[in-house]
Amino acid sequence: MTGKNYIGNKLSARGSKTFRTFNPQTNSENDTVFTEATTDEIDEAVSLASEAFKTYCNISGEIKANFLNAIADNIMDLGDTLIKTYCSESGLPEGRAKGERGRTVGQLQMFANLVKEGSWVEASIDTGIPEREPAPKPDLRKMHIPLGPVVVFGASNFPLAYSTAGGDTAAALAAGCPVLVKSHPMHAGTGELVASAIVKAAQKTGMPNGVFSNLNSSGIEVGEQLVKHSGVKAVGFTGSIRGGRALYDLASQREEPIPVFAEMGSINPVIILPEALQSRNESLAKTYASSITLGTGQFCTNPGLILGIKGEILSAFIQNLSNEIVKIEPSCMLHPNIIGAYENNKQKAITQQNISVVADYESDVQTNYARQTVTTVEGETFLNNSTLHQEVFGPYSLVVQCEDTNQLEQIITKLEGQLTGTLIAEDGEAKNYSQIVSALQNRVGRLIYNGVPTGVEVCPSMTHGGPYPASTDSRFTAVGIQSIKRWVRPFSYQDWPNELLPDALKNENPLGISRLVNNIQTREEI
Amino acid sequence: MTGKNYIGNKLSARGSKTFRTFNPQTNSENDTVFTEATTDEIDEAVSLASEAFKTYCNISGEIKANFLNAIADNIMDLGDTLIKTYCSESGLPEGRAKGERGRTVGQLQMFANLVKEGSWVEASIDTGIPEREPAPKPDLRKMHIPLGPVVVFGASNFPLAYSTAGGDTAAALAAGCPVLVKSHPMHAGTGELVASAIVKAAQKTGMPNGVFSNLNSSGIEVGEQLVKHSGVKAVGFTGSIRGGRALYDLASQREEPIPVFAEMGSINPVIILPEALQSRNESLAKTYASSITLGTGQFCTNPGLILGIKGEILSAFIQNLSNEIVKIEPSCMLHPNIIGAYENNKQKAITQQNISVVADYESDVQTNYARQTVTTVEGETFLNNSTLHQEVFGPYSLVVQCEDTNQLEQIITKLEGQLTGTLIAEDGEAKNYSQIVSALQNRVGRLIYNGVPTGVEVCPSMTHGGPYPASTDSRFTAVGIQSIKRWVRPFSYQDWPNELLPDALKNENPLGISRLVNNIQTREEI
Repeated sequence: MTGKNYIGNKLSARGSKTFRTFNPQTNSENDTVFTEATTDEIDEAVSLASEAFKTYCNISGEIKANFLNAIADNIMDLGDTLIKTYCSESGLPEGRAKGERGRTVGQLQMFANLVKEGSWVEASIDTGIPEREPAPKPDLRKMHIPLGPVVVFGASNFPLAYSTAGGDTAAALAAGCPVLVKSHPMHAGTGELVASAIVKAAQKTGMPNGVFSNLNSSGIEVGEQLVKHSGVKAVGFTGSIRGGRALYDLASQREEPIPVFAEMGSINPVIILPEALQSRNESLAKTYASSITLGTGQFCTNPGLILGIKGEILSAFIQNLSNEIVKIEPSCMLHPNIIGAYENNKQKAITQQNISVVADYESDVQTNYARQTVTTVEGETFLNNSTLHQEVFGPYSLVVQCEDTNQLEQIITKLEGQLTGTLIAEDGEAKNYSQIVSALQNRVGRLIYNGVPTGVEVCPSMTHGGPYPASTDSRFTAVGIQSIKRWVRPFSYQDWPNELLPDALKNENPLGISRLVNNIQTREEI
Repeated sequence: MTGKNYIGNKLSARGSKTFRTFNPQTNSENDTVFTEATTDEIDEAVSLASEAFKTYCNISGEIKANFLNAIADNIMDLGDTLIKTYCSESGLPEGRAKGERGRTVGQLQMFANLVKEGSWVEASIDTGIPEREPAPKPDLRKMHIPLGPVVVFGASNFPLAYSTAGGDTAAALAAGCPVLVKSHPMHAGTGELVASAIVKAAQKTGMPNGVFSNLNSSGIEVGEQLVKHSGVKAVGFTGSIRGGRALYDLASQREEPIPVFAEMGSINPVIILPEALQSRNESLAKTYASSITLGTGQFCTNPGLILGIKGEILSAFIQNLSNEIVKIEPSCMLHPNIIGAYENNKQKAITQQNISVVADYESDVQTNYARQTVTTVEGETFLNNSTLHQEVFGPYSLVVQCEDTNQLEQIITKLEGQLTGTLIAEDGEAKNYSQIVSALQNRVGRLIYNGVPTGVEVCPSMTHGGPYPASTDSRFTAVGIQSIKRWVRPFSYQDWPNELLPDALKNENPLGISRLVNNIQTREEI
């Protein structure tokens, strides 16, 4: 571990601003001193990326797959060093580190398979009709091409799966876009290790220098400079609404605005219908106590809001949830700043009028460990106080006691955009609540039935995104193969000579991919 | 013709601000007095659209197809009244009016077929694996759902095909989004006639009131209010860079930012390689004289920039182009404001240092008729003067005489984003200019070989869009079936009961659509 930036393949530390990462478990700084990237280093990295794009944008799917698979292999080769660094910079347990590494490697391999197969470019061919009257029909052929250099911001809560070689990076590299990572200061060491794995893979598989850079920073300046840089063509971010919105604003105010996909806050409403509450009161309480505290509540899909109809049964559920949640051992948060924000936001919530704290872990806890908390309010109070709609990032949930179904619907309609919405119902119960389901659908990216929102399966049918502020552009998902679409644009060739077309569009279909030819999906040649 | 707004199905004119359209051929105002929509009327229209969305978002593809086809039929039923109104408000000839009507009706029918067939929702199903270890794999199913009410700005230069029932409206209605048209003040009568066709179709096919509204305006206020309205979820626009950027800025500064697809300016560079210039000098001059003046140069794909390598042959081409272009009879522009802008922008261009006017139609022309103009500069001058990179909307083109291939490449790299780029080459010539082609690809949405950029074929493989400022989001096309993607978002159901799923995602596949089931594209049931 050097503490330096990767400007393309080269380690570099020309700046004077330094910082160290922090181990929240030991409540002390880690050893390595990291050097923040300078303006010159940023310019050089972007310039290398732009140059690399000229060749990388046309590299075959097979070679890109080799590159992605080599990154995955190199990450595994980092072995225990990576796992130990991850734990020392996040306070998360070893099991989580290994699970997340598996997910990261799996994502890289998933994109490798996707681009190796090749049909993802959605090739579409309409052959010409020269004899058409009144005007000949030209030959038109279309496919996806990459946007250009992409800046990826590492996410604090996923030091591997949504950071240096995480979902955004894997999707962008697969698309044919060079990547500049704004490394997350809380896990700069994990970031450097993973960056070294990417750089080695790039060199081994013959990628152009500049296809990847890793830039350290302790404040917001490096990120701002990257997003404003004219050589940067798109941005991926996972984090707070404040952070994501600031980047979105910078990007949209550029002379040439660029797309920002920011996956931001969410309180992930859970609606428990009356029959389900009646028949599964205790088991639901147990399930949700566990979902709320999973990963110390540091998931964007954490269930921060539970909605039910007021009455004895809901009161019993609140009591059961309280009993269950205080049984769970508190755990460590990622960083003193994160636990500080948790305590502040929780304090802000519980000091609102008419809110009651129903469960609060009372025994002493270690420094940087979070006390899980459950609160409750009546529907009317919630409706009229938007502070209560805001995310408290951590092991916290608010149970809202609605007057009736109408008020429940009103509340859902008034919520901001969310990643997920969950419906808990008995067999046949949901069909009587179609208004509720419709209202919920309009506010979320994913609906879950009789489950928990935590846990985001990586598969083609996953949507991880949603109406603002769940994400800045609900037309895309941040998880799964379709997330590659964030970094590409459609491109057409008109009457272009066959030998000059990219392989994906040639008559012979040398890649053997599935294409839409004159409105028929086929792998045949023309 | 009433001059009123359609607030949903109801004619309404509560305002006091009125205006009339203008016939540029007769240089006089038309008779009908139009009343601008008031803030109350705008609020009412958006509120109706939001209410209509609740049901319209779930209406079957078959019924949406009936609606779209009924609009097409009703437009044809407007007969000569529509054609005459079109001509009187645009100065365009009857043949163009009929051609554009055909295109408009064709687009509506194309989207009707698309949604009737149904596979466009890109249904994707990953069935669950309850026994998977360490955690069960949930059942996930995804499809596209509509964003919500869309505001469409009518384009001055396509009073039918890119206005009231044009491409944006057809795509949004097909997607399941109610549409609010901000009618273009230059063809408000054409707009009202088409709006009446849409409203009648909506009533006949049982669409919810508010699925469509048509709002008159003479200034920018109505458009601004619509884009800022919290009930509006997306915007479609075709027009100037200034107008499109202003709307993009408004939309991105909202509390909840919304996507804007603005198709804006473009000078559509045409590169003529030396051998082609040598062998087809005269015929190219003839072809381009005609493309530059087509529709009085009022196309977004007008070839405003021709690039070649300096020398006698290029000089001969410039002379030939000049000779050919002055042979063409001048024609009428859409409106005194448009010809005023044309004359101003041309004046600004030709008064730059070191630019020469090589052809300018010299005889007297009628009021509102445009004089076609060709100018030329050396590559160095063009490189260093960004004013010359700006669009002169009308029958104008600038021929740039480049020093050599390197300078040509430099010029292409420095251009702003463009809708199209055209390469004119002899057989086998293009392969020696791969750097030029790569540079061009990076700046455009569509590459044309040995053709002209004017004429945008409506087919699946068309891309009409491009890097900024050709459009505000290069990830989408404004023409063809894929343009529906601008108005939808992916949406997932997790472990959702089969009977509550939308038909597109049910096990039985009742719609018989093509779906991705566990990574295999199929029409089979599960």
